[in-house]
Amino acid sequence: MKRLLVSAISLTMPTIAAISNPTPAGMNPIDAWEKLAPGVWRTKIGHSEKELSYTSLAARPPRFEALNALPEAPFPFQGEPVSSLQNDGLVLVRIPCEEDESIYGFGLQLDGINKSRRVLDLNVDHWSRGGGRTHAPVPFYISSKGYGVFFNTARFIKVHAQVGNRKDSSNNPAPVDRNPPPQEPAAGPWMAQPPANAIEANLRAQGLEVIVFSGENLQDIVSRYNLFCGGGAMPPLWGLGFWHRVPASFDAAESTKEVEEFAKHDMPLDVLGLEPGWMTRSYPCTFEWQKHRFPDPAGFTQAMLNRGVRLNLWENPYISPDAKIHKALEPLSGSHMVWLGIVPDLVLPEARQILTDQHREDHLAIGVSGYKIDEVDGYDHWLWPEHAVFPSGTSAESMRQTYGLLWQQMLQNDLYRPANTRTWSLVRSSNGAAAGMPFTLYSDSYDHAEYITGLSAASLGGILWTPEVRSAETPAEWLSRLQTVCFSPVAMLNAWASATKPWDFPEVTDQVREVIHLRMRLLPYLYTTFADYNRKGIPPIRAMILEDESMISTIEEKSAELDDVNNPYADGGMLILEQNDQFMFGPSILVAPYYGSHSKKRSVRLPKGDWFDFYTGEFVGNGTTIEVSSPERTPLFVKDGAVIPLLSKAINNTREAKDQTLEVRHYGKAPGSFELYEDDGLTFDHENGAFSLRNLAFEDGKGTETEINKGPRLFGEVANWISMGK
Amino acid sequence: MKRLLVSAISLTMPTIAAISNPTPAGMNPIDAWEKLAPGVWRTKIGHSEKELSYTSLAARPPRFEALNALPEAPFPFQGEPVSSLQNDGLVLVRIPCEEDESIYGFGLQLDGINKSRRVLDLNVDHWSRGGGRTHAPVPFYISSKGYGVFFNTARFIKVHAQVGNRKDSSNNPAPVDRNPPPQEPAAGPWMAQPPANAIEANLRAQGLEVIVFSGENLQDIVSRYNLFCGGGAMPPLWGLGFWHRVPASFDAAESTKEVEEFAKHDMPLDVLGLEPGWMTRSYPCTFEWQKHRFPDPAGFTQAMLNRGVRLNLWENPYISPDAKIHKALEPLSGSHMVWLGIVPDLVLPEARQILTDQHREDHLAIGVSGYKIDEVDGYDHWLWPEHAVFPSGTSAESMRQTYGLLWQQMLQNDLYRPANTRTWSLVRSSNGAAAGMPFTLYSDSYDHAEYITGLSAASLGGILWTPEVRSAETPAEWLSRLQTVCFSPVAMLNAWASATKPWDFPEVTDQVREVIHLRMRLLPYLYTTFADYNRKGIPPIRAMILEDESMISTIEEKSAELDDVNNPYADGGMLILEQNDQFMFGPSILVAPYYGSHSKKRSVRLPKGDWFDFYTGEFVGNGTTIEVSSPERTPLFVKDGAVIPLLSKAINNTREAKDQTLEVRHYGKAPGSFELYEDDGLTFDHENGAFSLRNLAFEDGKGTETEINKGPRLFGEVANWISMGK
Repeated sequence: MKRLLVSAISLTMPTIAAISNPTPAGMNPIDAWEKLAPGVWRTKIGHSEKELSYTSLAARPPRFEALNALPEAPFPFQGEPVSSLQNDGLVLVRIPCEEDESIYGFGLQLDGINKSRRVLDLNVDHWSRGGGRTHAPVPFYISSKGYGVFFNTARFIKVHAQVGNRKDSSNNPAPVDRNPPPQEPAAGPWMAQPPANAIEANLRAQGLEVIVFSGENLQDIVSRYNLFCGGGAMPPLWGLGFWHRVPASFDAAESTKEVEEFAKHDMPLDVLGLEPGWMTRSYPCTFEWQKHRFPDPAGFTQAMLNRGVRLNLWENPYISPDAKIHKALEPLSGSHMVWLGIVPDLVLPEARQILTDQHREDHLAIGVSGYKIDEVDGYDHWLWPEHAVFPSGTSAESMRQTYGLLWQQMLQNDLYRPANTRTWSLVRSSNGAAAGMPFTLYSDSYDHAEYITGLSAASLGGILWTPEVRSAETPAEWLSRLQTVCFSPVAMLNAWASATKPWDFPEVTDQVREVIHLRMRLLPYLYTTFADYNRKGIPPIRAMILEDESMISTIEEKSAELDDVNNPYADGGMLILEQNDQFMFGPSILVAPYYGSHSKKRSVRLPKGDWFDFYTGEFVGNGTTIEVSSPERTPLFVKDGAVIPLLSKAINNTREAKDQTLEVRHYGKAPGSFELYEDDGLTFDHENGAFSLRNLAFEDGKGTETEINKGPRLFGEVANWISMGK
Repeated sequence: MKRLLVSAISLTMPTIAAISNPTPAGMNPIDAWEKLAPGVWRTKIGHSEKELSYTSLAARPPRFEALNALPEAPFPFQGEPVSSLQNDGLVLVRIPCEEDESIYGFGLQLDGINKSRRVLDLNVDHWSRGGGRTHAPVPFYISSKGYGVFFNTARFIKVHAQVGNRKDSSNNPAPVDRNPPPQEPAAGPWMAQPPANAIEANLRAQGLEVIVFSGENLQDIVSRYNLFCGGGAMPPLWGLGFWHRVPASFDAAESTKEVEEFAKHDMPLDVLGLEPGWMTRSYPCTFEWQKHRFPDPAGFTQAMLNRGVRLNLWENPYISPDAKIHKALEPLSGSHMVWLGIVPDLVLPEARQILTDQHREDHLAIGVSGYKIDEVDGYDHWLWPEHAVFPSGTSAESMRQTYGLLWQQMLQNDLYRPANTRTWSLVRSSNGAAAGMPFTLYSDSYDHAEYITGLSAASLGGILWTPEVRSAETPAEWLSRLQTVCFSPVAMLNAWASATKPWDFPEVTDQVREVIHLRMRLLPYLYTTFADYNRKGIPPIRAMILEDESMISTIEEKSAELDDVNNPYADGGMLILEQNDQFMFGPSILVAPYYGSHSKKRSVRLPKGDWFDFYTGEFVGNGTTIEVSSPERTPLFVKDGAVIPLLSKAINNTREAKDQTLEVRHYGKAPGSFELYEDDGLTFDHENGAFSLRNLAFEDGKGTETEINKGPRLFGEVANWISMGK
């Protein structure tokens, strides 16, 4: 599955798709494109105002001030126009492309980031079968030819990406006989799936809004998408510390003891997650404290805060008849229940008000810092049917596509933002225009390879993903999973069922502690990385194709030869070659975790340019593939010229960052700099300019610090400038 | 998966669903039910005349003369009415039921026949993921409470069978806390999926026709459905012989040699199947003979007929530009191609005419006896998208639901029926109202357990299924698969890729020959069994629940205890206990094949009444479970009083039946009779009365023959009357 790139598609960017086809018969060409910002265009097909759009649910409005500062970029469709058709209750949109374009994205697709020549059902669902259904099926894709397309309508969308040859297309491949006789050999190999020259997408809707993005390179396209969706979420500093979720039945005393154990083991801890048992009723829920387990919620929460530990509360949105808010919400809920709990219609302001008031009073007021919003994704047999009716008139389908988003938006915009308090939370479904939501996705599935792929996949669609750790079969697996999660938006051990603790495999406890401590030391680097997400739209973790476009996947046609008599129908198809088991962490660090059968050694594909070992500063290669085999620590590689600020020593809680000096490292030979961002770490005041920026530059082996913006600071002064490897 | 029935739901039949709920809020009650025949009612929701109905594609019109001869039966919905809603482009129909009803059917669902408490997407597709998508997702279900419901509209249908509790339902279970503290234990176990009291189905359509069936028992309900759909298909006698498909690249000489090998090995053969290589082009197709391989198609076909061997030709419907009919069909085809072949719009009479003319001239005229219609099912990445457009205006979705049906109907009604020649053919997709189609379904999937389940599943929805044999890992597997297929509508070895022959495992060749010979000897019994399908709607192979309703499945709620730390999310759910690894073959014989891990011994659940060993006539049990462990022959059990006519000795081709006398066996003590049906075995003249019926009765150890209807005969006279076990 994780194969090396063998050759690259030639890439010209910015690009003009040079397709000379006219609009296919029966399709309506679209010529009305409204330019919204440099490199951003919009069109509307049909009566799209009747449909819920993702951008209407974004955490913040488009960041036009940032977008307008970007250079112009050419509109990508200069040949065959984008076209559409409304027929049989469906809206069809056809986006022309070339057969050899690589298509990426569509949200949290854990089975690989390249989505060329696939049919995808972009429906919110558990991740279990692939095929497009996933926790966050963001209807946004980018093309290797240098543009992005966003379907901004909250409906299930079925995408035929380069699948389905129209008979009136002038550049279809020629058919080849599949069973030629020796006397008439076929002209070439038969193809199980001949490539088609468009992305065709359909949805059951009254209309569709399509937004097209162009830019200087793939990362720029994603950044413009993120900025258009309001910019990336900005975590509180504590959100980037270490998280631990305790078993579902834990009470206050058990939870307190667990926190104390972390301190005894010299293990960092910033967030404690409580699972369903904290409530009086769960599945369906009350959101009210279970007093048998937590007799003094305010006292417990405050005691935790006094230790620097934030509380994160599990919840799902389905409300028990025993909840005090049930009666008021009953008429404001959908026709069908989930686990016998009513489903509040979150499009209704009055429903949100009831929920927000309760959450504010019972949780926020006593210091609860965030939530884990569970069960907002699927399966079909758990959620409401598509024929359910909601009092706002929102379709059941749109409600499903957006329910995780709506709950996020309510907590962010109605609860935390009015309190001028940032949260950093978890959610199990999301969708388009979610970049500004301070929520990270997670999944029940527990495939380490897929969990790593998720970090790349999420980066292409304005969402965040944590490959949470729960348990392991071996110490090596335990270590490698903890290594992976420490390079994600939420470094979390989720022990709700396993009751595991970081030190449960004594053979590797020192290495586990080491990587968590490394994450803590990297806080200055990581916090700035998120600020760049917030202010510039740059994903904090990035797929390799956003770093180096020579790493774009290739597709090989598989032979149609029969090679398995027991499965003679498996012939044909494609082999997609992509590097989705490594990723960029912030601007300069390449992470290549060990995993699965690659638990002791693995290969790493280094992008173009000189790369250096993070730990030693030694040169490791340039545009080549290397092998690594030291699983005691995560393979990390740094770009030439990179400047990386770290805390001078490890800390066990983000509160301790304040007193820590900085060590600023420089890698390689090229001069470089790092614009260190800081603010109060807690509020939204940074949006009004209350942040500091200091430029940390390295040239000729010498580091200098320059203040660019004066504001609150989180970290201490620079104590050491280090030229790595010298 | 194949678990014994542990207890039975109490069953009262005919039944009146005693549900006192009113129509749920916002739903429209349906009170306009048109009575079409005894036990058959219809209602229409919305503008259903705009939608393609399955009954409009049936091979024959409803058999009202047979239906009207049946007794009246009560309308099943006397409590909460059936109700509907048209909203958001969907038609929703709600069929009330009770929580403890067992729901069966929905076509060729290979993962079990009970479909209670599931969500099913009834879309034509490959069988690969379950969830309702299958080769023949017939939208017909029967309930353990004694009624059937048919959604007679050719759209994708999403069925929530007892899934999704409406908040306004008066008899929902009470919610239970999933994580109760010790001080407040929950009232009962938490349920992952609380049962709901309806089947709710939705479809994207202008309207929906619903037909309800009632009857004396489950078999009667299925029979009325089959009669309403035109009665079951009547095979030519040769169709019930042994079939063999040769490798795709075989030419005339190789095919002839293969046929000769059958004779040399004393193996029956009636049908030879040619795979794609017989055509000039395949994937896409021309339907024209590949002259390099078959220089003299007429001579080859006639030579085969002279040996008593019928030809069956593989084809898929997607037409190559090299086909002589391509140009004429191009404007009569859909917007999208499949494997670069055009997709004829089979709703258009002119398209059917072109295809039928070509098939008649090139195939039927030289004596080709049938087809294997491949690739009419899926996947999404192979067929046309749902936004494809067809010139008749038929929706792409309806076209997909019916494409296999349309092709069957064209071959049966436009090609073979006008030639007064019966075919017996194969097809890879079908759907509602297909009982009269002389086509048997097959699948690429090759799971023996599922293949056995398919025989039961098909019997509930008016379709036929063959668990074809292709290859095996061991002689035991080879034998058991061949044993299974000999008790199916098409006893076939499909060697297109494997190049296997029945004698490929010498260790079991004698037993393989024995079971094929047994099938040949059973021709008189089997031919009458199909006549009962044709004339009375009785499925020739039947799920055990159609034989004995005490064998209706039970559902156990699984504990919500966490029993797997690595998969803590797998808790809850249901355990469905059903007997789907045995089935009835004709009126009297119970077949319980060995398979998979049950290849050497297995248990068999005998229905109520005395049962006897087929081979010895010995009593084996009554309403009990027995163990069998003689895999050298198929476990067969016969009902008390059964009369079974066999050919006196085995034959190798159905032509030889004519000269064979009959052996008539009687099992057990009860008197019994068998109405032996015969006709010319080839034409449709039987529909006009040209058939013979002779009653073979056994009483007090003595057999008597009485002629009931004089007509053409296929078999000889009775030579032996045998009281088995005496």
